Parts: sequence; structure tokens; C-alpha cells
Amino acid sequence: MKHIVLASTSTLYGEGYLAYLQPVMKTLFAGVSEIIFVPFARPGGISHDEYTAKAAAAFEPLQIKVKGLHTFADPAAAIREAQGFFTGGGNTFLLVKELLERGLMDKLKAAVEEGRPYMGCSAGSNIGGVSMQTTNDMPIVYPPGFQTMGLVPFNLNPHYLDPIPDLPHMGETRETRIREFHTQHTTPVLGLREGGWIHVKGEAITLEGKVSARIFEAGKTPYEVEPGSSLNFLRQS
Amino acid sequence: MKHIVLASTSTLYGEGYLAYLQPVMKTLFAGVSEIIFVPFARPGGISHDEYTAKAAAAFEPLQIKVKGLHTFADPAAAIREAQGFFTGGGNTFLLVKELLERGLMDKLKAAVEEGRPYMGCSAGSNIGGVSMQTTNDMPIVYPPGFQTMGLVPFNLNPHYLDPIPDLPHMGETRETRIREFHTQHTTPVLGLREGGWIHVKGEAITLEGKVSARIFEAGKTPYEVEPGSSLNFLRQS
Repeated sequence: MKHIVLASTSTLYGEGYLAYLQPVMKTLFAGVSEIIFVPFARPGGISHDEYTAKAAAAFEPLQIKVKGLHTFADPAAAIREAQGFFTGGGNTFLLVKELLERGLMDKLKAAVEEGRPYMGCSAGSNIGGVSMQTTNDMPIVYPPGFQTMGLVPFNLNPHYLDPIPDLPHMGETRETRIREFHTQHTTPVLGLREGGWIHVKGEAITLEGKVSARIFEAGKTPYEVEPGSSLNFLRQS
Repeated sequence: MKHIVLASTSTLYGEGYLAYLQPVMKTLFAGVSEIIFVPFARPGGISHDEYTAKAAAAFEPLQIKVKGLHTFADPAAAIREAQGFFTGGGNTFLLVKELLERGLMDKLKAAVEEGRPYMGCSAGSNIGGVSMQTTNDMPIVYPPGFQTMGLVPFNLNPHYLDPIPDLPHMGETRETRIREFHTQHTTPVLGLREGGWIHVKGEAITLEGKVSARIFEAGKTPYEVEPGSSLNFLRQS
């Protein structure tokens, strides 16, 4: 049975890395003694080793060992044999380029669809959507494509940000950017505010956390969904 | 002699479209009776025709006619014969995809380097840099590459935005995103605040407008440059 958590952010303001997600991780990774960490998004350019050490520290209270995907001689085999996965945030273009070029996106998708638990934060959640085309990140590298795992039948916009009132800045708001996406695609987009996450268990998809999410469907006025709501209705029509 | 204006934004808060740029346009397009408008960035999904009409209205006070590049049966020939160019803002991925797929990026570059005046705003300024890889836009389409015209030997980040104090949002700041770009590239990046523009005349590149710009060079602490400063020092080392 699929068991997936796609979180908007790894870290809430003023808190430690993955602190607010500890109870969620405990349930998601129950019975798991070791997971693979996907470090490729490299936030701020952190090295794969440093990033893996950071993730490992956050899994230590759960007595779960963390190995970086970059350390395996045969990463495809490692994915096939892994007990579970965590993909950290950072730059989505970097992450998708590495996974696609190494042929690992499909392997990861297959393992997660088979039932191995998966947690993503930010960029690691973006790749759970249909495509990475609603990322906020800069295109610092050119990936061979924008398709991602499609673990849920919609796209995510992590770190969703409401327009800031009275800001005399004329750059596009997040809502405008997502509306531009919908001039090209009909895939629904979930604007996932910090503190919220998507929970997938078997066929049930729900919004969890303490904050509402904003839903954008092509040709419709955006609207809010409250935590605890089912998201099973949200799919390309 | 090259004559180019690359502006951060088309519109200042509370003003009309291209209002603050009217004096600049008057000088840049002196003696020009007709220009080609490149409408491909389609802000908010506006149609090519509507967007061209909007640009035409802003050039009317200068008695300059505006024709949309999309209206020509042979756009490459139209570019070769044009008196000048204006590329509007919107989504940089859309703009670059159209220009590269139609083989027009190189044609436009050649015409501008020959001395035909060029103005860009936002996405239209991004394509004046070495690559579009420091755009703020969402990757709503997949262009065949990220290389742009390189009219200046650095990259631009239009609508540059300083970190907003006390915002409890954990999404990356613009500065963090540009630092991530510099983990992959050594091209300098000019963070161009709204109200600022780059002026190129012959070999002289200067910062104009009323606001300072923030410069990011790989491996250096970012720093400010004031309006009126030469930018000729800014190139890949």
C-alpha cells in the first residue's frame, strides 16, 4: 500500500530541521531501520555528504539510519532494495536533472508505488507531482525533461505564498505564475503553504497540517481546502 | 553602434504601462517610425494580438508604429529589415521556447548587434543576458535550451527583490537562489531592482534609473552599484 508524505517545507520558522514532521516521520517510517536520502537538490550548494549528514541527524531520534543515494555504486539496485526514502529540498532543476540523467526517477516511482514509504520536502515534494513545472526554483541547470513521478495526479507549489499586501513590487505573484501555467496545461495545482503536507495512504489522498491549501484548477477561481480534507477529487479532467 | 535598454520592469507601482520609460524610449528610438514587438512571453496568458495592442498604445505618443512579430509570414526576414525592437515581459520560458524553436533568437541578436535599437522589459531583458537561468519565472513550457542573446556579458535578475524583513517564510530568498546559480556557473548576475535599467551604447554599459542594483559574482560577497555606474567591468573571469 502506498504511503507517502509530501511536505511544503522541511523547516518551520524558528524551528529545527524536520522538527515539526517528527510525529509524521515516526508513523510513516514505522518498522523501518534504514532509508535512502536523495541529496541531489543541494540547497544553497551544500555537498551531498553534508546534506546527508543533516538528514541523518534528523532521523537519529527515530533510530533510523540514513544513507545518501550518491554513495551507492549501483543506485538503481539500492532503490530496489531500500526500506524507504526521503528527498530533501533545494533546487528542483538540479534534483530532476540528476534523477532523470541517472535513470533513477522511474526506479524511485516504482519502489514508492510498490509501497515503500516516501517523504519529500519542497523540491522533494515537487517530484511527487505530475511535473516540476510549478516549482519556484531558478533553472540553474538544464534537465532532460520536466516530468516527475506523478505519485499524486496533480502538481504542487511548495512554500505557497499569498500576495503580500501593500508591497509596491510589480513582479508576478505566485497566483499569477500558476495562472500562466494553466494557459499551457490543465493539470490542477495545489498551493501548499508552509506547515502543510499531503498524505497518501493507499488510494486516499488528504491534506494534513495546520494550514489551509489553495487549489488552482484551469478555468476556475482558486479556492481553499482545509486540513483533513480529502484531495481525491483533484485530478486532470 | 549597439543601442540597447534592458529594464527590470515595464510598469512602476501606480503608473501606466511603460510610463517611466517614455523619455528613454524617445532617445533610444529616435528617428525610428516602426518597430517589431516580440509578444511571446504573454504575461498572464494574454494573446499575441492583445499584447501587441498594449505595446502599440505605449509607443503611440512617440509616433512609432508597432507590429507584432507573430504577424509576419517570414519573421526572420522581418527581423532583418526592422528598424528596432521591443520585447515585453511575461514568462521567460515561453519567450525563449518560441524564439529558439522558430530560429529567431540568433536573428534578433544579429540585428541588435548590427545597431538596430532594442528595448526589453523583464523577460525581454532576461534574453539580453548570457542565459535565462536567473529568471524568476515558472518553467511552464520546456524550451530547447536556456541560452539567450548575450547582448551583455552577464546575466540579469529582473524585479530583483531584497529579503523582506520579519517574513516568517522559509522559501529561498532571491539572493539564495542566485547563490545556487553560482554553484553551477561563474557568469556574474545583476540583480536589477524595479525602476532600474541597463543602457548599452556602443561598448559602454551603464546602470541607469533611480535605484541601485545588486551584483552577484561567484565566490564574492554581493555588493551594490549606484545609478550612473559603468558596468563594463562585469564579465565572466
